[in-house]
Amino acid sequence: MDRVMKDVTPRSEDFSQWYVDVVTKADLIDYAPVKGFTVLKPYGYRIWELIQGFMDNRFKATGHQNAYFPVLIPESLLQREADHVEGFAPEVAWVTHGGAEELAERLAVRPTSEAVIGAMYSRWVQSYRDLPVLINQWCSVVRWERATRPFLRAREFLWQEGHTAHRTSAEAVAETEQMLRVYRETIEQELAIPTVAGPKSPGERFAGAVDTLTLEGLMGDGRALQLGTSHFLGQNFAQAFDIGFLDEDGVRRHCWTTSWGTSYRLIGALIMLHGDDRGLRLPPLVAPVQVVVVPIGKGAEREQAVLAAHALKAELAPAVRVTVDDRPEYTPGWKYSDWEMRGVPLRLELGPRDLAAGTVMAVRRDTGEKQSVARTALAGPEGEVSRLLRAIQQNLYEQARAFRNGMSYAVDDLAVVEAHGTRGLFWSHWCGEAACEARVKQETGATIRCLPFAGEWGPDAAREAGPCLGCGQTAPTPAVFARAY
Amino acid sequence: MDRVMKDVTPRSEDFSQWYVDVVTKADLIDYAPVKGFTVLKPYGYRIWELIQGFMDNRFKATGHQNAYFPVLIPESLLQREADHVEGFAPEVAWVTHGGAEELAERLAVRPTSEAVIGAMYSRWVQSYRDLPVLINQWCSVVRWERATRPFLRAREFLWQEGHTAHRTSAEAVAETEQMLRVYRETIEQELAIPTVAGPKSPGERFAGAVDTLTLEGLMGDGRALQLGTSHFLGQNFAQAFDIGFLDEDGVRRHCWTTSWGTSYRLIGALIMLHGDDRGLRLPPLVAPVQVVVVPIGKGAEREQAVLAAHALKAELAPAVRVTVDDRPEYTPGWKYSDWEMRGVPLRLELGPRDLAAGTVMAVRRDTGEKQSVARTALAGPEGEVSRLLRAIQQNLYEQARAFRNGMSYAVDDLAVVEAHGTRGLFWSHWCGEAACEARVKQETGATIRCLPFAGEWGPDAAREAGPCLGCGQTAPTPAVFARAY
Repeated sequence: MDRVMKDVTPRSEDFSQWYVDVVTKADLIDYAPVKGFTVLKPYGYRIWELIQGFMDNRFKATGHQNAYFPVLIPESLLQREADHVEGFAPEVAWVTHGGAEELAERLAVRPTSEAVIGAMYSRWVQSYRDLPVLINQWCSVVRWERATRPFLRAREFLWQEGHTAHRTSAEAVAETEQMLRVYRETIEQELAIPTVAGPKSPGERFAGAVDTLTLEGLMGDGRALQLGTSHFLGQNFAQAFDIGFLDEDGVRRHCWTTSWGTSYRLIGALIMLHGDDRGLRLPPLVAPVQVVVVPIGKGAEREQAVLAAHALKAELAPAVRVTVDDRPEYTPGWKYSDWEMRGVPLRLELGPRDLAAGTVMAVRRDTGEKQSVARTALAGPEGEVSRLLRAIQQNLYEQARAFRNGMSYAVDDLAVVEAHGTRGLFWSHWCGEAACEARVKQETGATIRCLPFAGEWGPDAAREAGPCLGCGQTAPTPAVFARAY
Repeated sequence: MDRVMKDVTPRSEDFSQWYVDVVTKADLIDYAPVKGFTVLKPYGYRIWELIQGFMDNRFKATGHQNAYFPVLIPESLLQREADHVEGFAPEVAWVTHGGAEELAERLAVRPTSEAVIGAMYSRWVQSYRDLPVLINQWCSVVRWERATRPFLRAREFLWQEGHTAHRTSAEAVAETEQMLRVYRETIEQELAIPTVAGPKSPGERFAGAVDTLTLEGLMGDGRALQLGTSHFLGQNFAQAFDIGFLDEDGVRRHCWTTSWGTSYRLIGALIMLHGDDRGLRLPPLVAPVQVVVVPIGKGAEREQAVLAAHALKAELAPAVRVTVDDRPEYTPGWKYSDWEMRGVPLRLELGPRDLAAGTVMAVRRDTGEKQSVARTALAGPEGEVSRLLRAIQQNLYEQARAFRNGMSYAVDDLAVVEAHGTRGLFWSHWCGEAACEARVKQETGATIRCLPFAGEWGPDAAREAGPCLGCGQTAPTPAVFARAY
């Protein structure tokens, strides 16, 4: 183990420290001059751009458009919706001065755009013909958190927030469900993260929502992470912000609205689920560099290998994100560790023997497996590089699913949860009483992550009615409990 | 003239009011609840996304990467560079409270990221091997302006800021020049806006820059607009933020840095240059909707036309951004005005007679020209739609160039500038004295927009040495004067 690895705590030893080490060593994030704020470095930002690309295409394909709303929001507007205020006010950064002048009213640095968007929709929507309004925004938000953790909990984070207004309740519900599906496709297909989906319990809902649908993932330490949520807001926000329309029958009605969001915590999930002692393992579809070519040798042989590496890159480049690491100052071993830390899915080694034999040594990041491949078999849509990248994408998902399934337990009894150290997904039941939810949390640290949809994967015993994990009385509702981030 | 047009002031009557009318009537922007702030609506945001796409591809092709730096910047950091402070401090929005707690130090809502990026580069750059650093950021910035104007001067605006650090002065100068070229390609090729390029006079430079290169465009009212700037910062910022590196010879040196920016004022330029009394005229390459198909008719004929319109859309859609306007509640005439206001380059009208004849009526937004085209000749890369869109893109540029050239005057005498009402580009000379620059400004309102590069288009008389516009003494430096936004 060399320089790259020596400052990284092993994952098995201290998951939390390992995570922070990888975040910085893989060059994703650095700490900013203001406490609790981070800088998303180019390598990390590129992952976000790739995730954005997949999501944004799906948003547009389902009829949504992007827009941009102001970063500063008047306090009075934020207070328009009572539940909403309670949810956010303690965490707001306040602007009190513009230039030298003290402002008559404090302005919040956007903790979410719900309020300002509500005010605009109230102006934009007049007739049923103006509906639906289907808008998304990519931006950052600020929340004055006490304890912070890169990607997961930060005073500023990157996210997207969708806000839609509809004529009927049914349409808004369908939108809420559709956006959860859109998130799930991106998270499972491109990020290779298996999820459990379903509504939240009332206690875990978004402030002001009638229903919150969530996607939950199981991280490498057995804790759950909320990956995306989609909220059916009923007419709550429409009433608070007076978003109404003249219907076809001449009656003025309030809209039914939704909101839905994901953030760059998805990058945190990639790390915590796919990462290992050697660092990141990125699914090829969201890897800034999918293939690194490392030329090997000394003197004239090295020069030949460097030339061959660049020729190979040129051949692969139209279809694959590929780079050549020909830095003279580092050894091949150092480079291997460096690119492994960054999670590059596939490494191609090109040395004098490979050149002579017309081969390349291909090394998979997900399995460590090495294979010698004919140089002529590498490129093209059916070539070995594309085939291996597809296999790695698939394998990371399969590994994650096997891990999630292996740590999914059907339980009736709090003692079993505790026996597992509250690590894993505990499939049980819930009677609907907040007291039972609270009791489970107090005794095990687990909360209800979701009330899984019918048809979600889960242990067989968790499909039907069974005893509530809190009180033991027969409850019809399956519930997934876990300790969460 | 109907409902769409009736609230729009004619361009010839009051350019300034026309501009504001078009911005809102074309559905680009709305005013936000906070004074001086605007909302970029979906149609306007889509234009920005298209511009971003073209720029971002060129940034990446020239080796740059995107990153994200915090929205809040400590006051002490902002004050590190004296000239910089002077340039920005009066316009800063200050955060003084986080949640309920008063902050020990005020935080600025990002007026530019120069300072925080300087602090990070100081950590990231240690060795000559870490250079160059080539980073761009897409974000919004806040400046507490007194008078605001949509897209041109707002308390918050969308922009990109590039910040690079180099080993040598020559490299940094080359970068400064390269990025001006990148801007120019986008602005001329995709936005169809002709530009004049060259350095600023010292008095018009960016605070802290050694040299500022600029692109200037002439708007429809004869005033100039600065479209993009690229700054060579010498070692000024590197010294202020201690961005240094151990060079190959073991000596520690300061970096040479650059910064460069454009903003969504480019959308303002599109309006002010290409717009007419009927609204926007968008160059096809940056038009959210390139083609609108309007089915015409009543009853069964209308139904047929709607079906045919959707079939046509399906055929064109892979290559063209096309929409069908089949809203039953509006007349064809109303729709024509509406899409003209939004600047859609090409309209295809599809009525019973067209259907019977197997034709479509194609109407160009740039010229108003109508032509009947065989239905079968429309689609495909060599089809009539693609050909017309290319012709419109080209024609808008040619029109703009003819306009710019026609309003370019070679002058030796302030009286001539005044005789033109200081409308146009005044090609003259400058002796280098700030007093002469000030005199021209005071008497005519014109400032030096740039000292044009050799080889820039201009009236012949402006190519060689000539009398300074301020003092009349022979000056070697050609200079372009104009009243500017």
